[in-house]
Amino acid sequence: MMMVDDVENGNLGPYQDRPRTFPNMRSKTYTPLIFRILRGLNVRVLAILLLLGFIYVFYIGASTSPIIVFVFSVCIVSFLLSIYLTKWVLSKDEGPPEMVQISEAIRDGAEGFFRTQYGTISKMALLLALVILSIYLFRNTTPQQESSGLGRETSACITVAAFLLGALCSGVAGYVGMWVSVRANVRVSSAARRSAREALQIAVRAGGFSALVVVGMAVIGIAILYAAFYVWLGVDSPGSMKVTDLPLLLVGYGFGASFVALFAQLGGGIFTKAADVGADLVGKVEQGIPEDDPRNPAVIADLVGDNVGDCAARGADLFESIAAEIISAMILGGTMAQRCKIEDPSGFILFPLVVHSFDLVVSSIGILSIRGTRDSSVKVPIEDPMAILQKGYSVTIVLAVLTFAGSTRWLLYTEQAPSAWLNFSLCGLVGIITAYVFVWITKYYTDYKHEPVRTLALSSSTGHGTNIIAGVSLGLESTALPVIVISISIISAFWLGRTSGLVDETGSPTGGLFGTAVATMGMLSTAAYILTMDMFGPIADNAGGIVEMSQQPESVREITDVLDAVGNTTKATTKGFAIGSAALASFLLFSAYMDEVSSFAHESFKQVDIAIPEVFIGGLLGAMLIFLFSAWACAAVGRTAQEVVKEVRRQFIERPGIMDYKEKPDYGRCVAIVASASLREMIKPGALAIVSPIVVGFLFRVLGHNTGHPLLGAKVVAALLMFATVSGILMALFLNTAGGAWDNAKKYIETGALGGKGSDCHKAAVTGDTVGDPFKDTAGPSLHVLIKMLATITLVMAPVFL
Amino acid sequence: MMMVDDVENGNLGPYQDRPRTFPNMRSKTYTPLIFRILRGLNVRVLAILLLLGFIYVFYIGASTSPIIVFVFSVCIVSFLLSIYLTKWVLSKDEGPPEMVQISEAIRDGAEGFFRTQYGTISKMALLLALVILSIYLFRNTTPQQESSGLGRETSACITVAAFLLGALCSGVAGYVGMWVSVRANVRVSSAARRSAREALQIAVRAGGFSALVVVGMAVIGIAILYAAFYVWLGVDSPGSMKVTDLPLLLVGYGFGASFVALFAQLGGGIFTKAADVGADLVGKVEQGIPEDDPRNPAVIADLVGDNVGDCAARGADLFESIAAEIISAMILGGTMAQRCKIEDPSGFILFPLVVHSFDLVVSSIGILSIRGTRDSSVKVPIEDPMAILQKGYSVTIVLAVLTFAGSTRWLLYTEQAPSAWLNFSLCGLVGIITAYVFVWITKYYTDYKHEPVRTLALSSSTGHGTNIIAGVSLGLESTALPVIVISISIISAFWLGRTSGLVDETGSPTGGLFGTAVATMGMLSTAAYILTMDMFGPIADNAGGIVEMSQQPESVREITDVLDAVGNTTKATTKGFAIGSAALASFLLFSAYMDEVSSFAHESFKQVDIAIPEVFIGGLLGAMLIFLFSAWACAAVGRTAQEVVKEVRRQFIERPGIMDYKEKPDYGRCVAIVASASLREMIKPGALAIVSPIVVGFLFRVLGHNTGHPLLGAKVVAALLMFATVSGILMALFLNTAGGAWDNAKKYIETGALGGKGSDCHKAAVTGDTVGDPFKDTAGPSLHVLIKMLATITLVMAPVFL
Repeated sequence: MMMVDDVENGNLGPYQDRPRTFPNMRSKTYTPLIFRILRGLNVRVLAILLLLGFIYVFYIGASTSPIIVFVFSVCIVSFLLSIYLTKWVLSKDEGPPEMVQISEAIRDGAEGFFRTQYGTISKMALLLALVILSIYLFRNTTPQQESSGLGRETSACITVAAFLLGALCSGVAGYVGMWVSVRANVRVSSAARRSAREALQIAVRAGGFSALVVVGMAVIGIAILYAAFYVWLGVDSPGSMKVTDLPLLLVGYGFGASFVALFAQLGGGIFTKAADVGADLVGKVEQGIPEDDPRNPAVIADLVGDNVGDCAARGADLFESIAAEIISAMILGGTMAQRCKIEDPSGFILFPLVVHSFDLVVSSIGILSIRGTRDSSVKVPIEDPMAILQKGYSVTIVLAVLTFAGSTRWLLYTEQAPSAWLNFSLCGLVGIITAYVFVWITKYYTDYKHEPVRTLALSSSTGHGTNIIAGVSLGLESTALPVIVISISIISAFWLGRTSGLVDETGSPTGGLFGTAVATMGMLSTAAYILTMDMFGPIADNAGGIVEMSQQPESVREITDVLDAVGNTTKATTKGFAIGSAALASFLLFSAYMDEVSSFAHESFKQVDIAIPEVFIGGLLGAMLIFLFSAWACAAVGRTAQEVVKEVRRQFIERPGIMDYKEKPDYGRCVAIVASASLREMIKPGALAIVSPIVVGFLFRVLGHNTGHPLLGAKVVAALLMFATVSGILMALFLNTAGGAWDNAKKYIETGALGGKGSDCHKAAVTGDTVGDPFKDTAGPSLHVLIKMLATITLVMAPVFL
Repeated sequence: MMMVDDVENGNLGPYQDRPRTFPNMRSKTYTPLIFRILRGLNVRVLAILLLLGFIYVFYIGASTSPIIVFVFSVCIVSFLLSIYLTKWVLSKDEGPPEMVQISEAIRDGAEGFFRTQYGTISKMALLLALVILSIYLFRNTTPQQESSGLGRETSACITVAAFLLGALCSGVAGYVGMWVSVRANVRVSSAARRSAREALQIAVRAGGFSALVVVGMAVIGIAILYAAFYVWLGVDSPGSMKVTDLPLLLVGYGFGASFVALFAQLGGGIFTKAADVGADLVGKVEQGIPEDDPRNPAVIADLVGDNVGDCAARGADLFESIAAEIISAMILGGTMAQRCKIEDPSGFILFPLVVHSFDLVVSSIGILSIRGTRDSSVKVPIEDPMAILQKGYSVTIVLAVLTFAGSTRWLLYTEQAPSAWLNFSLCGLVGIITAYVFVWITKYYTDYKHEPVRTLALSSSTGHGTNIIAGVSLGLESTALPVIVISISIISAFWLGRTSGLVDETGSPTGGLFGTAVATMGMLSTAAYILTMDMFGPIADNAGGIVEMSQQPESVREITDVLDAVGNTTKATTKGFAIGSAALASFLLFSAYMDEVSSFAHESFKQVDIAIPEVFIGGLLGAMLIFLFSAWACAAVGRTAQEVVKEVRRQFIERPGIMDYKEKPDYGRCVAIVASASLREMIKPGALAIVSPIVVGFLFRVLGHNTGHPLLGAKVVAALLMFATVSGILMALFLNTAGGAWDNAKKYIETGALGGKGSDCHKAAVTGDTVGDPFKDTAGPSLHVLIKMLATITLVMAPVFL
């Protein structure tokens, strides 16, 4: 423990010594094999290999469809743009040495935890890959597979390869998110000394970099897999697979992505909130020192948490959202094209990839539209950063509407139903409007400009108890409007799809579900910009922390405080967004699941009848799964936070000089405690989520076989999935909104209302904020991922239930 | 304001003046019409009328079935027994005048609120009766009705009459519960000065009185309706209705009962918890005075609340549980008997009435088995009252198993399937075991002898925030085991029923659902004893309050404290019980709903397919309904409690003498504030619960008509019902267990653990207790009622959706 030695040697200058945080974690190299191999290669060799790879990929793409070539090109251009953005961000100065030191401590902690966490996750992923492999080697083949000559071994290899690629890409997405945020934070703090606008620009461009990489990787990963399978399996040649069945092979990719995202979100969420709660409870409540005060031993852990919990985990979460949504829409497009006997179905199948390619284009324009002032040496009065971000969003959304309509005309035009593309572009509009309304509702319930948070703040004046009661009821109430909006958008998109004029052989309309899928794509058609705004939050938060810790003047703090507050709002709104898309994507994957089961079971599986007792029980268990998962996620934060509280209290007692800046706290111990605890705690809820649908499905399959219900297992799992989705949406809305509202009620009081900082009312509000932390940043976001992971796991594991 | 005058005249002796609480409420006579008519009658005339009525009822019963005569006789005997119990309780002394005065203040407050509340409820019930009447006058008739000559007008009258009778009986049940508790409380406190055992006995017998009346009234009410309809409609004579269709006419009774119970529980729950939270927040947390301290201005309101919230509301709740369960089981029995072409179906139909008749008998024996010590003048060391209650419960349960098996042999024996009765008695055993396991699970999660509450108490040592996080996760986690138990019992009872040997015309087994119904009856086969234990709690709580307020010696308080703690446990366990039975009853009513819709719509309605988008949305809305309802119920308590806090703070500031016993607080104002606020606040959640299924069903009916789905409205409502049931069970379990655990964590700390009373840890635990109050006593129990009300409202309102 170098730092302890430093302290004992009396080496207590104002942080001239770089804290060697996390030393014990760095000594173990948990680096995944693939990183080690890549690192061992010569840089030039690597470049040549990459170039060769690109050429080969382009070649494969070109032999599949011109649409794929378009998608590839856009993705590569946006990767190049993202490299430009990084270079731009990294070219900014890192400020005075005290900032650099703090930033390096944060970076060490974050990278150390990331490596350990993803080491654990990759081991679990490999184990699960083996399980999937063995299941697929013993499963029955479907008639389609038999007719296309797709044997058991091939099918097993395809699924496992897709799973591993999805997991790897998700890991890289998380890493990229964290990599840029631990480098941008200090540059934002440094820029805040000069101009608010420049600080904003750096944070936005850093967020934009990871957003472009995350979305681009989701798109290109699926496009490569699609093209590779297309060429490899000789799709559409006589005697082999039909192109409309191809998207179903990609499900493994979505499952891999959601598997990694689940553990990333759980581990990161527990880390960030345990550190935050622990730091606040002792620092703010007991000792009365401000947030991010350098005297708080848990402050570095808190700042590390922002990076691993919000940046890395959110990158993985959004990556998985987009992947799941693209794959489910491709499956539905394929199914519909087949039913309607459309001549060239590739337009319907590849439509989602094109939508997200345009997403990359329009979001890049939106990101670049946010510019620094011409003359950064002149300090201009602080503009409202929210207004600037909103302006960028408006640019993006207008362009998105136009490109979306263009894409529908390009890809969804068919002579069978000449006006179908128009209906589908209206579906897209429904999605975009839904996203807008969702954002508005979330703002209404979490922004202190509006009634609900003000009432919540007022309830703090009568004590801790009434504050919690009011917050819980606010959260529960906030589920109503989003549910009504989602309901209306599902029904209207379904109706628009049905009336699109696309009919199957018997003449009955079939476009309903695809309409819902298109609405989901509309909702996510500005995903990269949304993710940018989301990533902006923790970077600004971290920058504020660095400014506070390095004891900068009040004016600099003001700038980062404003950015931080805006970050809170954008974070809350993107969560609403993530839930909305999870609800829709999960509903789509559900119908893919039913198709999959039908084709495996050689019999029709069109209905999930909850009047059957076993199916009803499946639903009961599904809803229960959500409650239990949330319980374990919250409890993990509570337990870890208690450890932090004890450690921080211990340090304050054993080193009384800390409060007078005479002794330096041991930051490293807090980081180490939180890191090891969150790695331990993420296993239980994660394993529950993965194991329970499989176990329930298998048990009811056995029960069904013994009582003469052949499809019982699959039906029970379907009910489990649907009830878990519904409860999960509601629970996530409740947790996120309650947490956000508590946070902002506290912020409202800190503006001086109801007695201001230090009053009893403020103490009650801090309690609310503390309770809200695991709600909104651990359990809530983990539930988004859980919902989609359940949808993909049931698809991949379907052979177990039959 | 007489009391204010008293205070101003300096008339401040130690409570010689009887506080004229609630004067403004008493002046308005909101007495329902029926009470006024009854009061206007001469007592002798009334007695003669009653006797004539009884003879007529017996005559009708005798011309229906000998089983009905048996049920009548048992009910009348238990009514006589309950009169004996009241006389016994009332013969006990009321103690010194200071006790009497407090008790009278409580009684005034409780009766005043009850009258006002039930005045409002009865107006709403009359309005709803008009709505039902008009709907039924315009509805289509079913083929059965046409064939039996049951016209629209008759059917409308029957439904409305049943509804009003159900509402009236529920009101009487609530009144009886409160009537005895406001009289028994002071007698228990007085007896506690002599002997713990005597105090226990009085509380148990008082609880037993209302339990016998509540259960007896549910049974006799349904039996009278059944017999009256049987005779009136000439059932089973040629050309008229079949007896197997008769139970469906009773649904209105269940709906009336649940309608009243919902508002009783909401209003009472808001009253009791707002007063409790308000009193605790200022008294315990801010001023540091003990619970039920006479210096606290909200203490009388708190004690009034125990009576109106726990006694009256719980009476109405249990009444409604039993009514709903009897009716749903009768419907299922009738349907099954018809399908299996059983010659005399009356055994299957009347089975639930007989089970509850035996319930009255065995519970009476259990209640009477709890005796005072021979020589009450000798003070024996305090025995564990829980052990005494458990012994009584064991007696009851052994007898219940025996009588249950006897009833199945008597009524469910049929030559078609000679061993069916054996299977069904095993189903009953499944229900009884489920009840036992439920009680055990609730105890595990809420009793401080076990791990979870100890961990929760420990989490208070790190502050308010970690306490709340730990409590929320404990509550969420506690949903898992009950759900698994319910699942296993549904499946096993269903399987036992299916394999009973009863088959329909095509030879396929049909007894499954009836098996589940029998299990539910098994679960409720000791309902009267359970209700006794439940009523025991608030009586003991009140007695403790009176002892505390009348400044009795420490030894007396110890006795009531022990009784109070036991009451807390019994209250928590009976809630688990109520949820379990609500889950099962609602599942049964759901199948009745599907039958009802089939017969109305003249087409088969066997499946609720959640893969249809609209049906899925129905489910989403159903689950959302639960969240919104809970939100509004909790928020109502929070808002009202804030008013109480302000009033109590005002009194402490304006009358500084209160803290030194020099000035008397204005109890009446607190009671009046809580009463008017809870009457206002109960309307919003209650109206939501009633209006939303009707509106959703109607909207989707219209949508379905326009898009060519004739049964869409009915299907969407079915999904709404199922998802609401599932979410409601989970939410209620969460709320009840979290609340109970917080309460007992606080009690555990008060035993001296972790710093004991007054420590920071205790303050954090009090916050938890405060948050738990609306969870466990307002929102949680209201959800039990809501679940069953939804099931009955969909049945009664089915014509709106078609």
